[in-house]
Amino acid sequence: MNEPWQLGIAAAGRAIAGRALTSSALVRSLLERADHIDGDVKAWVRLARDSALREAARLDAEAAAGRLRGPLHGVPLAIKDIVYTAGIETNVGSTLLAGFVPAEDAPLVRRLREAGAIVLGKSAMTEFAAMDPAPTRNPWNLEHTPGGSSSGSAAAVAACLAPGAIGTQTAGSIIRPASYCGVVGLKPTYDAVERAGVFPCAWSMDHVGPMARSVEDVALLYATLAGDHKHPAGEIDMRIGVADRYFYERADHDTRRAFEETVKTLTAAGARLVQVKLPPSFEAGVDAGIVTMYAEMAAVHRQRFSTQRERYGWKLACLLDAGGEVSAVDYLRAQQVRRIAGAELSSVLSQIQCLMTPSTPAPAPKGLGATGDWTHNLPFSSSGHPALTVPVSLSGAGLPISVQLAARHGGEERLFHCGSMIERLVNFSHKARCR
Amino acid sequence: MNEPWQLGIAAAGRAIAGRALTSSALVRSLLERADHIDGDVKAWVRLARDSALREAARLDAEAAAGRLRGPLHGVPLAIKDIVYTAGIETNVGSTLLAGFVPAEDAPLVRRLREAGAIVLGKSAMTEFAAMDPAPTRNPWNLEHTPGGSSSGSAAAVAACLAPGAIGTQTAGSIIRPASYCGVVGLKPTYDAVERAGVFPCAWSMDHVGPMARSVEDVALLYATLAGDHKHPAGEIDMRIGVADRYFYERADHDTRRAFEETVKTLTAAGARLVQVKLPPSFEAGVDAGIVTMYAEMAAVHRQRFSTQRERYGWKLACLLDAGGEVSAVDYLRAQQVRRIAGAELSSVLSQIQCLMTPSTPAPAPKGLGATGDWTHNLPFSSSGHPALTVPVSLSGAGLPISVQLAARHGGEERLFHCGSMIERLVNFSHKARCR
Repeated sequence: MNEPWQLGIAAAGRAIAGRALTSSALVRSLLERADHIDGDVKAWVRLARDSALREAARLDAEAAAGRLRGPLHGVPLAIKDIVYTAGIETNVGSTLLAGFVPAEDAPLVRRLREAGAIVLGKSAMTEFAAMDPAPTRNPWNLEHTPGGSSSGSAAAVAACLAPGAIGTQTAGSIIRPASYCGVVGLKPTYDAVERAGVFPCAWSMDHVGPMARSVEDVALLYATLAGDHKHPAGEIDMRIGVADRYFYERADHDTRRAFEETVKTLTAAGARLVQVKLPPSFEAGVDAGIVTMYAEMAAVHRQRFSTQRERYGWKLACLLDAGGEVSAVDYLRAQQVRRIAGAELSSVLSQIQCLMTPSTPAPAPKGLGATGDWTHNLPFSSSGHPALTVPVSLSGAGLPISVQLAARHGGEERLFHCGSMIERLVNFSHKARCR
Repeated sequence: MNEPWQLGIAAAGRAIAGRALTSSALVRSLLERADHIDGDVKAWVRLARDSALREAARLDAEAAAGRLRGPLHGVPLAIKDIVYTAGIETNVGSTLLAGFVPAEDAPLVRRLREAGAIVLGKSAMTEFAAMDPAPTRNPWNLEHTPGGSSSGSAAAVAACLAPGAIGTQTAGSIIRPASYCGVVGLKPTYDAVERAGVFPCAWSMDHVGPMARSVEDVALLYATLAGDHKHPAGEIDMRIGVADRYFYERADHDTRRAFEETVKTLTAAGARLVQVKLPPSFEAGVDAGIVTMYAEMAAVHRQRFSTQRERYGWKLACLLDAGGEVSAVDYLRAQQVRRIAGAELSSVLSQIQCLMTPSTPAPAPKGLGATGDWTHNLPFSSSGHPALTVPVSLSGAGLPISVQLAARHGGEERLFHCGSMIERLVNFSHKARCR
C-alpha cells in the first residue's frame, strides 16, 4: 500500500504527526480517488473540496509549528448527510431539504474538529434515514446494495474514499451497511454520543456512531465522539455468549457457516463460548422498537408530510401513514415493554463479555432498490445496548459476512476487546475493496 | 381552642415534644372527632384505629425516653387512598381495588414515619383520581363539593379530622379541593416528591403534596416529603406578578372581589404587584396537558378497562375512551409543546417572586355530583411549576375563596414566603370549619 488514500485513521494520524505525510497530500489523494471511482460507487453526496483543502493547509501549518490538536490531526472523514455541518449543505437524503446550509456544526462535528479531523464531505443516505435508497453501490459488487441508511458512510470507508466515517442508526443503519460493506462499525450505547444537530429519525432510538476499516480506528473515533461519556472497560474476560434463538435461525447458509467458523476459531484461541438464553421479553422488545420508530418518525414529519406528501418516497410515505395510526396508548405501552425487555437483556449481558451474533441474516442482497434486513440490529437499537460489527469472511459470491457483538450499556470497551481479538484471529482482508 | 384535635401540625409537634400532650391523647381525640362528625363529612375511607394507637403508644414511649424522631413526632396524618400504606387497605377510589392491602409503604410514607408521623387513616378520593366523585362533603357547607380528587384530604384538614394530609394532583387535585375547603395546599415542583408507591393517574403530570391549616404546617410536611430535593429560597424580594389574562377573566364576581382585595392588602403592606404577560404558548401548554393526561390515563387503565369496563364510573369511562383515541403523534407533539410552553413560562416566573392568581374560577359549587373546575390549576400541573393555595376570604354564601401562588421550578421556599405574608395580612379564620 503506497497511496495515502489507503491509510487507516491511526496510520494516517501517525504519519501526519511524524511529518511523513501532510494532511493536504492525504486530502488531495482522497479527492483524486473520489474523481476516479465515486462515479461508480456514489458514496459522496457532496465533497467539501475547498474547505477540506483549506483546513488541511491550516492543520499542516499547525503540525509544522509542533501543535497537534489531537489523535485525529489532519485526518479527513465522511460525515453522513444527516449531521449538520457549518457552511456545508445538508439534505438528509431528501429534496425537501435542498439548499439547507446549517449555520453551525453539530456538537459532535465540533468535537471531531477539535481533535483535528477534517470534514472531507457528506456521505449519501436513504431518504430521511428510512428505506428509500440512496444511489450508492456496494464497492464489493456494484450490483448489490451497500445497505442503509448510512449507505455512503459504509461504502466510502470500504472503497477507501475516506479512512473513517460517521453514521447513524435507528433500526440497523450503522451495523447493517458496515457489515454489507465489510467494514467495522459501532452503534454506541444510547445517549453516549450527543444527538444535537443530527436530524431526528426516531429520537428515542437514534444513535450516532463511527465506521472505519479496523477496530482500533473505530475505537479512536468513538473516544472523540463520546468524550466524557466513555465508560471504563471493567473486568475483561473471555466469555462470549451465543444466543439460543432469534439470530442464527434467521441466517442463510453462508452466514451460518461463517458464524460457525468464527466460533471455532475463537474456541481454538481459548475463548469460552457460552450459550445464552435470551429473556422471554426479547421479541416483545423488538416489536416495541418498531412501534416506537413508526410513531416517532410520524411525529417528526407530521407537519411536512401533511403538506408535502408527494415529495416523500413511497416507502417512507407508507411508514409515516402507518406511524400516524399508532395510538398513544400503544406507543406508551411500547415504552414500558422496551424498559422491561431492556432491563432483562441487561441482566443477561451483564453475565458475559459480549454476545456474538451474525451481523445480518445474509450478505448484501442484489439490487439497489432495497437496503436489506435490519432484523439482527433492531434489538440493540430498541434496548440501547452497544453493538459492534466486524467482518469475518466472504460469501460464495464474494460479499462480506460479519459478526455483531453486543454488550451491556456502556460496554464499548468490551466490544473493542472482543472485536480486536476476532479481527486478529480471522484476518479478514480489506484489500479486495480498495482496488 | 382547648381540644387536641384543634391543633395544627407544628403546635401538636411542639406540645408532644414538650410533653404537654401525648400522641396517644391526640390520636384518641381525632378518632372521637371522626366518630362525631365524619358521618356527615365522609372524609375518611378507612381509619387505621388500632395501628395508629399502637404507633402513638410507641412514639410516646420514645418521647418519654427523650428520643424524638423528627419534627412530626407523634403527629397523625390523613393519607390519600392513592398512596400505598403497608397493611392498610388501599382502594384508589375504585371497587376494582377492593381488598388490596399493600405489603409495603410508599417511600413517601416511610419518610413521614421516619420523621415521626402516624398514618391515622386513608382519605377519600374520586375514582382513580379522575372525576367520578367521592362521597365526601365540604365541611363549610355539606351541600357543596369539597372538590377533588383529593376530596377527603382537604375535607379532613378543614374539619379538623387531621392536622395535615397528603394529596396528589394531576390536573387540579390538590389546589382545587384545598381552596374549596379553605385550607393551605402545595402542589410541589414535578419530581420533587417521589411517586413510587402512588397509583399512577397520568405519570408525567402526577404530583404528591401536602395540605394543612397554615403555610408553616405545609412547609413542615413538604420538608419531610421532599427530603434532599428541597431547593434553597434564593434571593427573596417583594415582586408579585399578576397575569395579564387567563385567570382573572375566568373568575366569578366574588372571586374577583376577593382577589382585588388581596392585591390591595399586599400593596398597602409594601409588596410590589407587577403585571405579567403570560407567554403566547401558555394556552397551548394547557391543551397539551389535557392530551397528555387523557392518553396516559388510557395507557394506565388499558388492560383493566378493556376487560372490566362496566366497573368504571361513566366520567372516567368517557375519558378513557377519549384517551384511547389520542394518536401517538398527537401525544408526542403535546410533549414538545409542554416543553416549549414550560420553558417560556419559566422565563416569566424567573423575573418575579411569585405569580398570584385566584385558585379557582369560583368557590365550591353546590352539589356532590361534580368536583369543580381545574382550569386555574392545570397550567402548573402541565408545566411542573410549584403552586400553593392560601385561603383569603369567604364568598357571600360563606364558602372559602383562595389565591394560588406559582413560582419557578424548585421555588417552594418563595411560595412559603409569599404565602405566609398573605396569611398574616388577610387573617383568614379557620374557626368556622372546626366547630
